[in-house]
Amino acid sequence: MAKDKKLVEAITSMDVDFAQWYTDVVKKAELIDYSSVKGCMVIKPAGYAIWENIQKELDRRFKETGVENVYMPMFIPESLLQKEKDHVEGFAPEVAWVTHGGLNQLQERLCVRPTSETLFCDFYANDIQSYRDLPKCYNQWCSVVRWEKETRPFLRSREFLWQEGHTAHATAEEAEERTLQMLHLYADFCEEVLAMPVVRGRKTEKEKFAGAKATYTIEALMHDGKALQSGTSHNFGDGFAKAFGIQYTDKDNKLQYVHQTSWGLTTRLIGAIIMVHGDNSGLVLPPEVAPVQVMVIPIQQHKEGVLDKATELMESLKDAGIRVKIDDSDKSPGWKFSEQEMRGIPIRVELGPKDIEAGNCVLVRRDTREKTVCQLQEAGAVAAELLKTIQKDMFRRAKEHQKSHITDVASYGEFKDAVEHKPGFIRAMWCGDVECENKIKEDTTATSRCMPLEGEEAVSDVCACCGKPAHKLVYWGKAY
Amino acid sequence: MAKDKKLVEAITSMDVDFAQWYTDVVKKAELIDYSSVKGCMVIKPAGYAIWENIQKELDRRFKETGVENVYMPMFIPESLLQKEKDHVEGFAPEVAWVTHGGLNQLQERLCVRPTSETLFCDFYANDIQSYRDLPKCYNQWCSVVRWEKETRPFLRSREFLWQEGHTAHATAEEAEERTLQMLHLYADFCEEVLAMPVVRGRKTEKEKFAGAKATYTIEALMHDGKALQSGTSHNFGDGFAKAFGIQYTDKDNKLQYVHQTSWGLTTRLIGAIIMVHGDNSGLVLPPEVAPVQVMVIPIQQHKEGVLDKATELMESLKDAGIRVKIDDSDKSPGWKFSEQEMRGIPIRVELGPKDIEAGNCVLVRRDTREKTVCQLQEAGAVAAELLKTIQKDMFRRAKEHQKSHITDVASYGEFKDAVEHKPGFIRAMWCGDVECENKIKEDTTATSRCMPLEGEEAVSDVCACCGKPAHKLVYWGKAY
Repeated sequence: MAKDKKLVEAITSMDVDFAQWYTDVVKKAELIDYSSVKGCMVIKPAGYAIWENIQKELDRRFKETGVENVYMPMFIPESLLQKEKDHVEGFAPEVAWVTHGGLNQLQERLCVRPTSETLFCDFYANDIQSYRDLPKCYNQWCSVVRWEKETRPFLRSREFLWQEGHTAHATAEEAEERTLQMLHLYADFCEEVLAMPVVRGRKTEKEKFAGAKATYTIEALMHDGKALQSGTSHNFGDGFAKAFGIQYTDKDNKLQYVHQTSWGLTTRLIGAIIMVHGDNSGLVLPPEVAPVQVMVIPIQQHKEGVLDKATELMESLKDAGIRVKIDDSDKSPGWKFSEQEMRGIPIRVELGPKDIEAGNCVLVRRDTREKTVCQLQEAGAVAAELLKTIQKDMFRRAKEHQKSHITDVASYGEFKDAVEHKPGFIRAMWCGDVECENKIKEDTTATSRCMPLEGEEAVSDVCACCGKPAHKLVYWGKAY
Repeated sequence: MAKDKKLVEAITSMDVDFAQWYTDVVKKAELIDYSSVKGCMVIKPAGYAIWENIQKELDRRFKETGVENVYMPMFIPESLLQKEKDHVEGFAPEVAWVTHGGLNQLQERLCVRPTSETLFCDFYANDIQSYRDLPKCYNQWCSVVRWEKETRPFLRSREFLWQEGHTAHATAEEAEERTLQMLHLYADFCEEVLAMPVVRGRKTEKEKFAGAKATYTIEALMHDGKALQSGTSHNFGDGFAKAFGIQYTDKDNKLQYVHQTSWGLTTRLIGAIIMVHGDNSGLVLPPEVAPVQVMVIPIQQHKEGVLDKATELMESLKDAGIRVKIDDSDKSPGWKFSEQEMRGIPIRVELGPKDIEAGNCVLVRRDTREKTVCQLQEAGAVAAELLKTIQKDMFRRAKEHQKSHITDVASYGEFKDAVEHKPGFIRAMWCGDVECENKIKEDTTATSRCMPLEGEEAVSDVCACCGKPAHKLVYWGKAY
């Protein structure tokens, strides 16, 4: 059987080659496939269903804060992209250009959106007139294109799916408030739904978004100790408003510029889920985001009554509000177990003739492989409770991993030693000088991830690089 | 107030200029805005929320039939587009070409997908190996680009949103069955959710999709008597499979080609809703698809207790499962009424001091303007019931309009007379010769819309154009 053959080729162990392990999991859990378009991927049903769950929950949380969805064109005329100087410098080198429509050359080139600040600004310039029109809190779900040279599934691809929120406010304070509100919404979402702890912080000047006044970020730690920027929220101040002429009449009938924000989360998060929770048997999905939470696997299903009872069990789990499927294919139970494990389904329920006789079934956790025997009529309640426990345990373990992979350093010697020998975040003081930031990157390949928002205590009082007095605490790390 | 000024400019009457009426409604109901990208539109919150409701319900119905969502790249390499001859001929003249990525010219041009048959086929060629892999029933929600010369909001734009389903089956019968299943799913959706009656039929050879063996269509009748193709479902037979080498090993270990289908619905449907149900006060939304079903409008809201009571009323409607909002802005009730009417919100509930004193509120239907007075504590149940009635009545009226705009003709004289004087569908027999089809189009601008699926009785026994014996009954009409 072609299907089985594929599964026999075991995935590479993550301790041997983490990068290869990642690629193997992505392929064997059937999340993506490569396409004929270089650097672009096909997101298969198992991968897309995770994205749908992310969308559903994020969208609900957005709307609770007053966000409305819209859709902007996918093309940006070259002249529009150029209106904000820093922005075009940041993006022009990596956009795809449309030069022909049908058989004719276009009068002006269009780029495929790498992000849509310029389109939203162009729209807001006409749409916003009075203070009554504010705030505008718009979001769109779409795909964007960035012509990356090296690509990796989910982490960096030429086209990816995301949401981009773009808001306009009457005051600078309100814009800053919204920027942080969305950062915390992202962080809470990652921690509560993806069971993925994050550090909430602010980017340095060097690392901030092209055209932003301030960029905030959530940084997650992967299993191999590398950081993954998992979501960003930008405060633009009135920079774009001035470049695009977005003004409103205030209550005193005076013209004022709006203050803007933008914020985005992408399919990259699926990569993060894999690298935070996965193991050597494949994907491990947090129950909250798992498209299938429980897989019922009948044992000796050819025996009379087994399939009927298994189907009945599945229905009772469904009634308990669980996303459940039954694997009644003609593969062996062993194969079905490995498939369920590879795909990261949080619980499998085994049910064979002996179990039926005893009125029991066996629940096996994907994350710990722990078994629970329970009475058939209690399976729904037990599984629902177990899903909650798994979710909590997965977060706890990821949090412990994060905590045990943070190294505080005071000197440059310690810094370099930590980069080499202690995978994870490095907490170190920084004088604020971009030259130190550049030097650290050059010497160690570690970059400044963020300056944490929560009042963390200083590690020392001098810059870990140059030794000058320093007040800024920075999380550093190698990053994806 | 800028907002009010906009509304004062009344929309053009549909009897004076239907096209202008349409454009006015689209703009004044704030469904779209024009963008700086020629031929592309900005879908604003009120428009996008309709699309979200369409998506939610269609997606649910798709999944019930076993469809899974995926995501394919938005680019198609030129060589891939060219693999199926009829298909490339149909689409090449109207695609947008990406020629540069970043600062470099691409080795091979990429077109922005006008539709994704070629990408799905390329994927299926690798993904399908055995009969165990079949059927594949995949769908994607995305935007596509067709470089149209003349564009109109929702009806024809260079970029539009849609879903495209692509399936692969072991047998020709199964493919035909899926093609028709999706056609009926579309038709039922339009009739049940959009209150829009459709004719289900098959396209002639001339009008079928580029590369299809058979194209089925649902055709709706707009208020002005023009037809709108509202959804299509194609059976490709094994044509694409042969062009792309999509083969599977059957149970007897023999190689076989798969049989494929594709089917799509677009944001064009929003245009159909406007033109089927709208009136001279603006949009009229069927309750099932209306983002806001009821708008509570307080009267003399400055008086003590009015706003509190109105908010309480809103909450009780929400508890009854109704999508409800309250308009507590500082505009006059009159303005609020026109806004609610312009936006097509199915019911408004008026509540003023006198109503409160009597323990009543007033429900006003958008479609008929009929008023119902009901007790406050019954408002939820009454409104829920009224929404159902409105949905039913809207379908009934649209169905009556459709019925009264079908003209049966037996001769070419009658045909031409009907095109000129009787807006709507023309039912006429056709010999099957493309020359008659071309002649009719040239003489009258009417095109063959479809050959109805349901056993309708023949209108005569000769072709309305050439007079030769004819067995095919065809719906003809001017179309958008």
